[in-house]
This record gives sequence, C-alpha cells and structure tokens, in this order.
Amino acid sequence: MYDYGLLNPVWAGTRAAEQTSDVAFAQAMLDVEAAWCRAQIRFGTAPESIGQAVETACDITSYDLTELAAKTPDGANALIPLLAELRNKVAAQHPEAAGYIHRGATSQDIIDTALMLVAARTGEHIVTDLKTTVGQLGALADQHAETVMIGRSLDQHAQPISFGYRVSQWLEAIATAGQQFETTLTNLPVQWGGAVGTSTWWVDYFKAEQPEHDPMQLVTAQRDMFAEELGLVSASVWHANRMPVTQLAHAAFEVVAAAAKLANDVLTAVQAEHAELAEPNKPGRGGSSAMPHKNNPVLSIRLKNAAQEATGQLTALHTGVISNTAERADGGWHSEWAALRGLLRVTGAVAEILSELTAGLEVFPQAMRRNLDIHGNYLLLGRISQWLAPLVEAHDVVEKGKGKQLVESICQEAIASGDDLAQTLGDRLPDGLVSVKAIEKMLDPSGYMGGAATIVAEVNSRYRKWST
Amino acid sequence: MYDYGLLNPVWAGTRAAEQTSDVAFAQAMLDVEAAWCRAQIRFGTAPESIGQAVETACDITSYDLTELAAKTPDGANALIPLLAELRNKVAAQHPEAAGYIHRGATSQDIIDTALMLVAARTGEHIVTDLKTTVGQLGALADQHAETVMIGRSLDQHAQPISFGYRVSQWLEAIATAGQQFETTLTNLPVQWGGAVGTSTWWVDYFKAEQPEHDPMQLVTAQRDMFAEELGLVSASVWHANRMPVTQLAHAAFEVVAAAAKLANDVLTAVQAEHAELAEPNKPGRGGSSAMPHKNNPVLSIRLKNAAQEATGQLTALHTGVISNTAERADGGWHSEWAALRGLLRVTGAVAEILSELTAGLEVFPQAMRRNLDIHGNYLLLGRISQWLAPLVEAHDVVEKGKGKQLVESICQEAIASGDDLAQTLGDRLPDGLVSVKAIEKMLDPSGYMGGAATIVAEVNSRYRKWST
Amino acid sequence: MYDYGLLNPVWAGTRAAEQTSDVAFAQAMLDVEAAWCRAQIRFGTAPESIGQAVETACDITSYDLTELAAKTPDGANALIPLLAELRNKVAAQHPEAAGYIHRGATSQDIIDTALMLVAARTGEHIVTDLKTTVGQLGALADQHAETVMIGRSLDQHAQPISFGYRVSQWLEAIATAGQQFETTLTNLPVQWGGAVGTSTWWVDYFKAEQPEHDPMQLVTAQRDMFAEELGLVSASVWHANRMPVTQLAHAAFEVVAAAAKLANDVLTAVQAEHAELAEPNKPGRGGSSAMPHKNNPVLSIRLKNAAQEATGQLTALHTGVISNTAERADGGWHSEWAALRGLLRVTGAVAEILSELTAGLEVFPQAMRRNLDIHGNYLLLGRISQWLAPLVEAHDVVEKGKGKQLVESICQEAIASGDDLAQTLGDRLPDGLVSVKAIEKMLDPSGYMGGAATIVAEVNSRYRKWST
Amino acid sequence: MYDYGLLNPVWAGTRAAEQTSDVAFAQAMLDVEAAWCRAQIRFGTAPESIGQAVETACDITSYDLTELAAKTPDGANALIPLLAELRNKVAAQHPEAAGYIHRGATSQDIIDTALMLVAARTGEHIVTDLKTTVGQLGALADQHAETVMIGRSLDQHAQPISFGYRVSQWLEAIATAGQQFETTLTNLPVQWGGAVGTSTWWVDYFKAEQPEHDPMQLVTAQRDMFAEELGLVSASVWHANRMPVTQLAHAAFEVVAAAAKLANDVLTAVQAEHAELAEPNKPGRGGSSAMPHKNNPVLSIRLKNAAQEATGQLTALHTGVISNTAERADGGWHSEWAALRGLLRVTGAVAEILSELTAGLEVFPQAMRRNLDIHGNYLLLGRISQWLAPLVEAHDVVEKGKGKQLVESICQEAIASGDDLAQTLGDRLPDGLVSVKAIEKMLDPSGYMGGAATIVAEVNSRYRKWST
Repeated sequence: MYDYGLLNPVWAGTRAAEQTSDVAFAQAMLDVEAAWCRAQIRFGTAPESIGQAVETACDITSYDLTELAAKTPDGANALIPLLAELRNKVAAQHPEAAGYIHRGATSQDIIDTALMLVAARTGEHIVTDLKTTVGQLGALADQHAETVMIGRSLDQHAQPISFGYRVSQWLEAIATAGQQFETTLTNLPVQWGGAVGTSTWWVDYFKAEQPEHDPMQLVTAQRDMFAEELGLVSASVWHANRMPVTQLAHAAFEVVAAAAKLANDVLTAVQAEHAELAEPNKPGRGGSSAMPHKNNPVLSIRLKNAAQEATGQLTALHTGVISNTAERADGGWHSEWAALRGLLRVTGAVAEILSELTAGLEVFPQAMRRNLDIHGNYLLLGRISQWLAPLVEAHDVVEKGKGKQLVESICQEAIASGDDLAQTLGDRLPDGLVSVKAIEKMLDPSGYMGGAATIVAEVNSRYRKWST
Repeated sequence: MYDYGLLNPVWAGTRAAEQTSDVAFAQAMLDVEAAWCRAQIRFGTAPESIGQAVETACDITSYDLTELAAKTPDGANALIPLLAELRNKVAAQHPEAAGYIHRGATSQDIIDTALMLVAARTGEHIVTDLKTTVGQLGALADQHAETVMIGRSLDQHAQPISFGYRVSQWLEAIATAGQQFETTLTNLPVQWGGAVGTSTWWVDYFKAEQPEHDPMQLVTAQRDMFAEELGLVSASVWHANRMPVTQLAHAAFEVVAAAAKLANDVLTAVQAEHAELAEPNKPGRGGSSAMPHKNNPVLSIRLKNAAQEATGQLTALHTGVISNTAERADGGWHSEWAALRGLLRVTGAVAEILSELTAGLEVFPQAMRRNLDIHGNYLLLGRISQWLAPLVEAHDVVEKGKGKQLVESICQEAIASGDDLAQTLGDRLPDGLVSVKAIEKMLDPSGYMGGAATIVAEVNSRYRKWST
Repeated sequence: MYDYGLLNPVWAGTRAAEQTSDVAFAQAMLDVEAAWCRAQIRFGTAPESIGQAVETACDITSYDLTELAAKTPDGANALIPLLAELRNKVAAQHPEAAGYIHRGATSQDIIDTALMLVAARTGEHIVTDLKTTVGQLGALADQHAETVMIGRSLDQHAQPISFGYRVSQWLEAIATAGQQFETTLTNLPVQWGGAVGTSTWWVDYFKAEQPEHDPMQLVTAQRDMFAEELGLVSASVWHANRMPVTQLAHAAFEVVAAAAKLANDVLTAVQAEHAELAEPNKPGRGGSSAMPHKNNPVLSIRLKNAAQEATGQLTALHTGVISNTAERADGGWHSEWAALRGLLRVTGAVAEILSELTAGLEVFPQAMRRNLDIHGNYLLLGRISQWLAPLVEAHDVVEKGKGKQLVESICQEAIASGDDLAQTLGDRLPDGLVSVKAIEKMLDPSGYMGGAATIVAEVNSRYRKWST
Repeated sequence: MYDYGLLNPVWAGTRAAEQTSDVAFAQAMLDVEAAWCRAQIRFGTAPESIGQAVETACDITSYDLTELAAKTPDGANALIPLLAELRNKVAAQHPEAAGYIHRGATSQDIIDTALMLVAARTGEHIVTDLKTTVGQLGALADQHAETVMIGRSLDQHAQPISFGYRVSQWLEAIATAGQQFETTLTNLPVQWGGAVGTSTWWVDYFKAEQPEHDPMQLVTAQRDMFAEELGLVSASVWHANRMPVTQLAHAAFEVVAAAAKLANDVLTAVQAEHAELAEPNKPGRGGSSAMPHKNNPVLSIRLKNAAQEATGQLTALHTGVISNTAERADGGWHSEWAALRGLLRVTGAVAEILSELTAGLEVFPQAMRRNLDIHGNYLLLGRISQWLAPLVEAHDVVEKGKGKQLVESICQEAIASGDDLAQTLGDRLPDGLVSVKAIEKMLDPSGYMGGAATIVAEVNSRYRKWST
C-alpha cells in the first residue's frame, strides 16, 4: 500500500481518487470476468449453475492487494495473479465453474475492458459535475452580463468587457470539452479477442460445437451480451489499435485544460492588488496560521496543478502509444494504464473542484471598476478618435486623413494636464460638432463592451439544455 | 532564411512542408485580410472600389519575409509588421482603401484564422492521402487475409494470425483517426472578435450607421460572409477558448500515432532475421555505398521519427494551452502557433509517406511461414490440449481433470524426441478416439487463425466507402 | 488506500516503491521536523528536555495516513495536517515541547527537505544497484569482447561487432548516468527559510536574544546543524530557485534513459527470429499458460515501460517548474512533488531490474554468428574492395580509379552465382596479386571488428574503480 | 526554404537563430569534414596537397540548401547529399583529394560532431549573455537590497521582502544553470567511430600501413587531432550512448527554466494593478496602436513562450533517446537533431532576451510599498504576537499559553476598528511592558525582512567572479 495522495493535493480525498483506485480497478477486472461468465450463461455456453460461485468470488474485498501487487511484475500485469486467485476461490466453491472463468480470453481483454469500465464509472460523475459547473457558470455569466471590468490582452489592460463575458468563455470551453467527453463515454468499447485478437479459442469451440453456424457470428453475438452486461459498446477487437485510448485520454485532457484557463484567471483576480474575485470560503481551507491575512486560492491552485500533472500523464500515454507493436506491445501498452488512470483521476478531481469553485465564487464589481479605471480615459482614446476623426474631417476642421491626429493630440494633452476630457474636446472642437454630453457617453466604459451581453446570452442558450 | 529541413528528414521536401511554411502562413494571413475586405464589400460596409488594390497587395511574393521575421519579436507576432506593410502597399495604389484593411480586427483574429486556413489547406491533402492509404491497406488486407504468419504478444511469438489481419488493425486505426481528422476539418472556425473578443469597433460602427438594427446581428452576419469567403465555419469568438486548437491538434496526433504502429511493425518485419516485409524500392533511397546489402527502411524510420516529434509538439502546445489567461494569453497563445504548425506539417508528411509505403510494401509469405515454424508444434500445444483433453476424459482414459496433463505430457515428450506429433498422439491415444489425419489438421497453423479473415472483411467493409 | 502498484508493473513490489511511498515521505517529513528540534537543542535555542517527546511523536506508524490525505487538499499540502497532529502528540507528552516544533519554519522547508531526504535514501540503493550493474556488464563485456555478432545501423545489418562492444556501450551510458546521479546525491540540499525564505522569525529571535551577533550568521550556523542531522548539504534558501529539483530529476532520468537502450536491444535480441539473448529465468515469471513456448522478456519490458513513464513524469515536473513564481509558486511547486517522487521510484525500480537482468542475461554466440551470416559475403564487400582496389590499380589491371568497380563486379557476380568468393577472386585477379588464403582471412568477419576489443578494455578500465 | 521565424517570436531575428540555422548546421558539417582532412594531413595519412581543394569546397554558400533538403528524406539525413556534392566539388579541383574526404567515417560521425560544433558556437554567446545577465542582476539586487516589497507565497501576500532578495533568487537560478551549461560546453565531444563505431576502416588501414603499431592507438591519436581542429573534446565513440546529448539538452533546459521564473515574476509585476516593474522601452516594441496605454511586456512573454517551447523540444528529444537501439537507432537518433537544435536556439534567444531585459528593467519602489500596504498591519500580526505573547505571559497578564490569544484579539479588534495599532497595544498592555515606539518599530515592514540583505550579499559574492 503505497500512495494515499499525500503528494497529490489535486486528488487526495476526492471521490475520483476512490473511483480510480487500485481497489476500484481490481474490482473492475473481477466485474469483467464475472460479466464474461454471465454472458456465457446467457449465450448457453456455460451452465447457470456456475453463476453463484463466480459472483461470490468476484468481490475484491476478499483479495490481498499487497500480495497481488508483489506478484504483478512477474507477468508485467496484475490480472495474472488476480486470475489465479479468482480461479482458486471459484474452484473452492464449485470445482467445475473454474473452467469457465476467463474462457478464451487474454489478459489484455480483461485489463483494457476494466479500464474502460473504470472510465465509464468515473466518467458518469465527471459529466454530472461538469453539467453542474456549466449551469452555475451560466447563472454567473447571466448575473454579470453587464458588470464592467477590464479585458486583458497579453494579460495587459485592453478594453472593457463584462465579467459575464469572461465567464461565458470559461463556460464555452468547459461545455465543449464536457460534451466531447460525454460523447466519448458513450462509445467506450469492450475489448474481446483472445491471445492475438482473433478469438481462436472460441472459433475452435464453436466450429466443434455448432458447426452449422459461422463461428465468428457466434463470437460476436456472445461479445454483444458481454458488452451489454457491462454497459459498454460491443466493438471489433482493438488490441493493436489504441485509438479508443487516445480519444478518451484527449477528451479528458480537454476538460482539464478548459478548467486550467478558469483557474489561471481566478488566480490573477484573487491577488490582493486585483481583488476582483475570491474563492468560496471553507473553514480550515486555504488559511495560514503564520499569516492571518491569507486566504489561499487552493481550489484554483489545485486546478492549475491538475493541468500540469495531466500534461505529464498525456505525454507518458503518448510515448507508450507511439511505441505500440504487433498484436500486443512490449511496454507501450503497459505505459497506457497508469497514465490513463491518472488522467481519469485528475479529470474527476477537476470536475469536483470546478463544481465547488463555481458554486461559491465571490465577485467584487467595485474592485473590477476600480481596476478598470487605472488607465482612465487612455482606455477610450481609440474609441474617441475612431468616432470623432471622420466628423472633424467632414466639418473641414482639418484636411482628410488628419482627423485622427488632431483628436488624439487634443486628448493626450487634456489627459496629461488632468483636464476633463469631454469638456476639453467640447471646447476645442467647432460648436455643434458634438455635445459634451455625447462625448461623456462615449467615454463611459460600460457602454464600450461591444457584444459582451449578447455573447453571454448566445453562449448560455447554446448550453442551457445540456447543463440541466 | 533559417530552416530548409536539413535536420527534419520527416518532412524535408514534402508537399506538407510547403503548405505549412512561413510563406504559406504569411500568405494565409494576407488571404484572411483580403477576405475581410471582400466580406465588407459584400456586406456593404466598404466600397467595391477597394477590391483590386487589396487583392493585388495580398500576394506574399512581394514581401520580404526575412525583414518581417526580424520585426516579429517587437510585438511578439508577425501580423503587426505584415499589416503595416500591407497597408502601405494598398495605400500606394488606393489611399482610401487602406482604411478598410483589418477594420475592427485584432492580431489574434488574423493569426488564429490564418492557422485554421493553413490547417484546412494542408488537411485536404492529408485526408486524400489517408483515404488512398486506407484503400491500399484494404486491398493488402484482402489479398493476405489467409497469409499465415506468427502473431506476437508482448512482441513474442503467440499464435498464428494472417498478415491481412495485422493489416486490418493498421487500417482500422488509421481510418478511425483519419475520419476524426476529417470531421475536425469540417468544423474549423474563423476567429473574429476584435481587441477583447466583443467586436467593440463594429458594434460602435453599426450603432452609429444602422441604429435600427441589433449591432451584434450585423456583426454576425458580416462574419458569416467572412467565413464563407474562406471556406471556414462562422463561429462564436474563441480568443480565450482554445478547444478548437486542442481538438485539431489531437485529431492530427491520432493520425501520426496510428501511423507509428504500422511503422514499428514494418521496422521489425524488415530486419534481416525476419525478412517478412520490405519497403518499396526507389533508386537512391535507403542504400548505403559502404554497406551494399543495406536497404534502409527510411519510410518507416521517418514515420517513427514523426511520432516522436509530434509527441514533443503536442507537449509544447499543451503547455501553452494550460497557461491560457484572460482575453488573450501572455505566452500560452504564442506557444500554440509553432506547435500546431509543426503538428500539421508532420501529419501531412506522415500521410504522404503512408500513401507511398502502403502502395509498394513487399510481402514475403514464405518468410512469414518460416518464422512461424520456429517454435514448431509448441505453438499448437494449447490448441491440441484444449481439443483432446475433454475427449480423453470422455473416453475414461484418465479421470476427470487429468486430461490436459496427459495430452500435454505426450506432446512435450514427442516434440522433445523429435517424433511426429500427430503420429505419436495417434499411437498413444486409444484407437478410434481421433484419427491421425484429424490431428494433423489441428496442427496446421493456417487453420488456427480464428476469425482473422472475418475481421479483415468486416474492417474492410467498414471503411470501404470512406476510402474511395 | 489508493494505489498498490497494480497498474504499475515497473515498480510494484520493489524496494524503491517502499522507499518512495507516502509512508516513507510522511516519515521523512517527521524526520525533518525532529532534526530541526535536535538542531535547536544542539544550538542551544531549545532545551534538551524536549528531545524525547519529539522523537517519540515522530514515528509515522502512529498516524492515520488516510485521514491526512483527506485533509491534504485544504491547504494543498500534507504537512499542514501532519504538523497539527504532531504538535498534538508532542503536547500530550510534554506541553512546552510543542512550541519548538517547526519553529520559524514554513511548509515548503519541510516538504522540500523531506523530498531530498527521500531522494538520498532511495538514491543510496540506486547507486549501489548501478555499481553492481556496471560491474556485471564489465564482466560480460570482457567475456564477449571477441564474440562476433552483426552490428546494426538504423537497426539494419551493418558491419560485424563483438557482443562485448555492444555491452560496453550500455555500460558507458549507465556508468556515466550513474556517476552523475551519485554526484547529484552528494549535493542534495536542505531547504530552510521560513515564510518567504528570509528567516524572518529566526532573525527576529536572534536579534532579541543574541543582539551582539549577526543574526543571519546564527541562522546559518543553526541550519548547518540541521543539515548535519539529516546528512544533507547546508545550502542557501531555494524556495524560488528550483534548479536543485531539475538537476536531480535530470540525473534520475538519464539513468532511466540509459537503461532503456539496453532494454530495447534485449527486446530485439530475444525475439525468436534473433534468439541471441535470453532474460534470466525465474519460476513464475514471463510464462504464459496458454502459450507454453513463451518466455516473455518482462524485465526489459518493465525497463522500456519505465522510460516511457519517466518521460511523462519529467514533462509534468518541467511544466511545473517553468510556471514557478514569486517566493512560492501557486501550483508549479505542487506539480513537482509527485513527479519527482515518481522519477525516483521509477529510477529505483530500474536500478533493481538492471541489477537482476545483467546478472543473468543468457548469451547465445552461435545464434549471433548465424544471424551475422544472413547476408553472407555481402557484408564484406566494402572491406574487400577497399583492400583490393588499390592493389589492382597498382598492378595496372585497370586504370587508376577503376579498381573498385572491377573488384565489386567480380564479387557481385561470384556471390550471385553462389561461387566461392575467395577462390573466384583468386582466379580472376592476376597471379601473385593476393593469395586465396589472404582473401579468406579478409572475408572472416571475426577479423573485421575494428577496435571492438580495445574499446571494451578502455571502457572497462574507465569504470572499474567506480563499480566496485 | 520554409521557416523564417514568423511563428516563433521567441527567436525570430535573433543571433541564436542564425547560429542554429540550417545554413549554420550545414556549414558545421562541412567544417567537420574539413577538420577530418586536416587531421589526416597532420597525422600523415593524407598529403598536404589536398588541403586547398577541401577548404575551398567546404563553404556552404556554394551549395543549394533547397536541393539538399529535397534529397534529405532519401537517406533520412542531410549529410548524404551534402557529401556527394562535396566530393564532386573537391574532385573538380583535385581529383585525388576526393578520396580523402569522409575517409572511414559514417554519417553519424559527421552529424553528431556538427551538432556539438553548433552547440559550442551558440553556447559561447549564451554563456557571455548569461554572465552579463548575472552581472546586471547582481547590481540590481545590490541596489534594491533594502527596497521593501511584499513577498508572495502561493502567489499571495505573505511577508515583506526586499526586491533585491527576489532578484537574488533569479540570479542564483540563472547562475547555477549558466555554470552547469558552461561546464557542459567544455565537455562537448567529437563523434568518431565509422559504420558501427569500431573504426573498422581505419583499423584495417593502420594494420596494413603501420603493422608495427596498435591500430587503435593510432585511431585515437588521429581522433585527438580531429578534436583539436574543432575545439571539441576527443572522446570514446558515443553512437549508441546518448548521454552527451541528454546532458547538453538538460543543461540548456535549466537555463530556460531559470529564465521563465524571472519572466513570470515580471509579468505579474508589470500588470497595471501591480505596476512594480516595467520592461525596458524600445521604440516600436510592445505598443498597440489600437490601445495606446499598452506597453506589452514582450520580452517576458517571449521568455515564457520559450520555456513552453523548450518543454516540448525536450519531450521530443527524450522520446527519441529512450527508443535508442543497436549501433544506430532507427528513428530515435533522428528525433534528437531538431529537438537539440531547437533547444539551443531557444536557449540562445533566452540569453539574448535576458541580457536586454535585465539591463533596463524599471523598478518602482513606491508601487512596491503601496502594494505591500494593502493588508496593512494584518501582515505584521504574526510578528507582533510572536514578540509580545511571551512578554505578556512573563508579566502574568494572562496565564502561560494564553499570551498569543490575548495579543491577537487586541490587534484584530484595533485593526477592525481602524484604531492605531501601536497606540492601542500600548494602552491595553500593562504600563512599562513595551513602549508605543517599540511597537511602532516592530510594525515597520522594512524592519521585517529577515536576512534579505544578507542573502543578496551572499548570492552576489558567490557569482561575482563568474559573471565578470
């Protein structure tokens, strides 16, 4: 028993950690073996009588995982010692039943299917959490569709936006990734093929037992039942085609990457100098006894940490996948397991954190407004000159093409002297060209958010159905 | 100026390298700027008269790319100096036209859209090459659906397969990845949003010019024309939502990973000790003057190399994406560019190589058979004992449960003594239990390929339509 | 609670897994806290009386790691809940002693130092195993310094080498990496600095208590004792300078990468078609009941798997390190922990596997010779023409510059016709130019290994002292 | 001619880009071939007369790199077509000289050595720039050794530090990495070994020509001259031992990672809300015509971008290195080239940027002080209670162990009410316990920087000699 999560603040103590634990994976392997027995019973290739003994033996709590781990290196997988023990347990109750266990299967059938099962189980909660998150972000975006703040380009003050608009972009990324992840979940396949993927054992069996039928049709029909038992998709063998693994891994990574963007923005906004957002409070979380003013944004830190871990896990998985060989790889396949599990675990933790963070994120519109004002009217210079330059030229104040220069020089001068910009422009431009009031309106950043609110509404309407 | 591909055997001299070159990217940026002008003309926000000057100026051959590169670091992007030059060129022909260039846009609109355009252009050829490859692999699988060879598990001899079956697994992975890539291509979006993604400039413009309309409806309608001009999808702004980039990158990587599996298998099979396959010959390729017996499998080496490069590029892209912030990231965005281009380039090269390699792969069935026989009848022991043990037990030769042991001990002994296995079994087992002929049939590896041929047919039927 | 290693055949059941377990890491954190108390006692800033209570409480077996893990996310590290519990345990025995625990320290001081302690403890065994490995490889290289086999370039037959020469290259890489790793171990630093690295608490303390001294001299002197207690190096604070972490990680990775090369070569050589090497046998390892002829090279598979995992861990670590910020990073630091632990664990497992694999690697010189002969005399063509061309020209058999062509055409013809090459050359070349015997000598591949044996001796002499 | 750097703001237009260009690499390959000829002349194995023809032909400006690139894929390396052309050029001038070119060498000898030569040439400037940077940082640290600012833990306000202290940590990381990189540069080896690394050609040659000597001693002696000609280290063959490559790559990455930390800190500090630092101004850099208030921190953005790119390049390199096989790898080796070049290029650009950024970084001490004050006296609570609690207990104001609680409650109350904290404490604590003045002194953050200035001095003294 090695790891509890002490070095993994991302997932220590989360539901995802349990759902992807070695215990959960080993139980999934037993579930797969049991499902295969049930499929045989249903298909008439095994007697009903074996059912009870198999089900009873397929409970991971009666196995010693430390011992299984110790035997894992010998065959470079954990199924081999688990299966030996499973056969013993079944045989102890029902000697003949043992022969039906794992019949015609290979380690890879069980391990790959078990990983898909773990994905399906963890994935279900991930999708739920992501839908909750998207719902919460939708409400937040809606609420702040008009809350003005500074938009940042290259992380520098650029133009005003609304906070709701920024939230809508978090939402769109998370929802896009979430939907793709959900789609991937609905396609998770069982693995079934025997030693080299061609179902030799069962083809021989059916040729002998049911010579009147095409043996592969029977193999496929029996596999369909197996898949049905597990709630997975009945698919052609993929021992040597790892696309199902890469697609799942990529879909998971996209969720984590979308969450990281949100976290990065929160981490900037909670800095004391910004103070635009605060993470939800929870007693005992994020404080520091030595530094009582601290409220560490631990949820966002964990999300950021998660994305960094996931990047490494995906690299490991890719490095494995690209060294795939023959009918079963010599190392490449093995590298997928921990990496895929790690990705699912991190993604699950991310979904849990997102759901908590977006439920209680505190927003400080006054601070947003204060920060927006740091550059004062400089922020509006582009807008003002875009608006006034043509008017100035149209009134022949200056010749064509010189309007922008005139307007900008008046503005720069006024701002530098600390004069009221609207008034100065009103004074300096010909009477009747524009009113001071009109200029003041154009200088109001809350009117300079373009389509921010429209985008909020559009994004919300796009994902409203999915999120509920 | 810098790179010709001398350190990049994967893509040096390929069509993909040209389609993703800096020249191609810069031309794509000009194409995007030109398309925006055309969209304005069509939408009635710019006069038709600007068209000619813009089109003429949007030809990259009249720009000095070395100079543009030298100016690139100042704004951390190449669009800024390119745009300055473009405006100069347009103004030289038609002074007023210059004002319509890039109107209401931001660098990110152009760069992101240009990258999507490069993806669309490169992608079209990639899909064509992948379809050709899948077609060729389908024919190869069909032709060798019954060509027996050894299947390998953990890269060790396991059970017989047909070469066609192995090819079917290459095919399935490449076709799955290719179809997903093709789908991604059909969704490539334009980027449009201005400084912070809210189209402030155009909202102001339409409020002033067409106050009777919802300005964002006009913005969207004009964007639709822009997308149409470029053959891309009109989508909501994604400045701060990088899912379109990760999805494209992942789809590309999956193609490369699927190809790597094929390459790894070819690299094993062309070794002199295996000699089961040879790469297509081309004068001047893969030979060595110092070592005349060499025929280096350079196509497969390049595919393997490609997958390793792509793993690094994807890591760089991920590292960038997860540090995305605010309305435009401060470095994370910049890291996507070269990584995405690199992925497209490598994927394009991979598709070209695949198409050539699978067109001319030489297959040596006799060598496959010779290698299969290395372990002789040992390979069939499992099958024989699975078949005979129940018969032996049914005939009360041994008690229940001991059949396998008896059969195996007879076999091991016979093989060790070099005796004919079928004959020995016939002699040692009770008369009438099985005929020597029946045993000989069971010892024929070509009858022990399970559903190999069925799988070949099934996979071929799944992708036949797509590949043609 | 979560992971036993079932998905990690690389390290499940290894000593390294235990030495890097959460238990070991948590014990190391307690060891660091205890060492700090001992340092205070030695330095006179804490009374001796606290010693016993602290030592007693610093035994990880009396802590509930599942509970600690559950509390880890709240502060995004495990030290916070561990410390609270430690203080309780100490206070229960000796109320005043609790105040001396963690005095002036910050979480990062303890966690970073604990990781270095884990590195030192695991590292000691790694170095021992690597020295054993290098010693064993040295003997193997020596034994096979003249055992001829085919050398491979781009994995294709190139020229003869000796197996000992190939071993010498494994040895050199492993020894180079091992020595660098050992050097890194001797420089592992303690971390000491308090909240922001400037030792504010202790500076205040010493200013008040020992105003006559430079407080930082006292801080440093006390830190020296702390380092001495732990067997680590007393170093300037490195909270915000992660070079000690990257150097350690890189040194570990190099060991793993060097091992992967060896594993890749073994995996090729154990294939049935090559059969030049076999992994040491161990009952129960690497066999397959379904496929009795199999002896899976699980040690090499685990080494290959290890390198792929390590590549991912290093990527995660790098992704963390490059997002380092301020006096303590918001996520980047957290990503280092599991990655560094993972690298140490994998490196430890690799060293154990290497030591076992190189102790019992079986070598089959006859198979090496058989494989070498696949291309027959083609392999020697270059040598023969290099040798004879000048002689032929010198004897005016052909004009200058045509010698190579003549020799090669004679050779190609002879080989193609299946004639004896030496005899044919002897017949076709002018009498007295060279003897058939001399040609036969030149055609002997065992005389065509260049400096192979010299390189073996040179490499062995370079590392002999280190390995013993 | 594909890439000018338009997608690579990190290195476009830098000196490093030129030093690592394909032109520079190809010239390095020619330099290696030329050096080998000179070594032969010096060693007496080639006539002096060949020198001129070789030198003349070894000028890359007379080669067509586009053509070489087009031929690169055929042999999967660029040396093959380059060498053919080189031989032609030499032969055109001096027919016999052509035979001495590349004598006994293999592609890998030239390519590996050329990459080391590129590293040496680029590296020299990198070290110079890093020394300049360290010198500049030393001066900056010194100047601001007492400039108080807030220190951040988990990027949140923690305790005061001096800006000089933060700079000292940048300095230490960059100097550590720089020194290690410099050391690596002094060990860059030539590669020399022929087809499979055993110098067969030259061993045969020397056996024939100088039978009285040990041929490998002559091979080594001649190699020493070759190394001397190139300014590299004469080393044992490392075709199959890639540790020299990983060590160089790791050393380069460490420089980039150290720089990224500095960049991340600058990016936070230049935000308008912080405004503690500004990047040096340069006309035309970092501005935005649409947003005149912007001064984009492009140097830091490029440094951050660099680290992300380098992470990907290192992953590619690692993925290649761990798939190393036999005497020359089938793809793994090829993946090293572009990755290593990329790392050197990025590292060179980073060094240039660092040197410019640290020369002109603007520091705003008033803003630092303003930000520090955001949390006001909350920041000092820990310090005050650490100081007063024992005094309060010693004066029996409260019982032992309750001092901290009393002091903290007085403080919290005072701060909450907006009262003067020193005065309130003076009032509420017994007369004579402490003076208000003493409390005020303890509340001065500039006196609460622990050993900041000492650390600055210590770090500066550690690297002063190296940096100049």
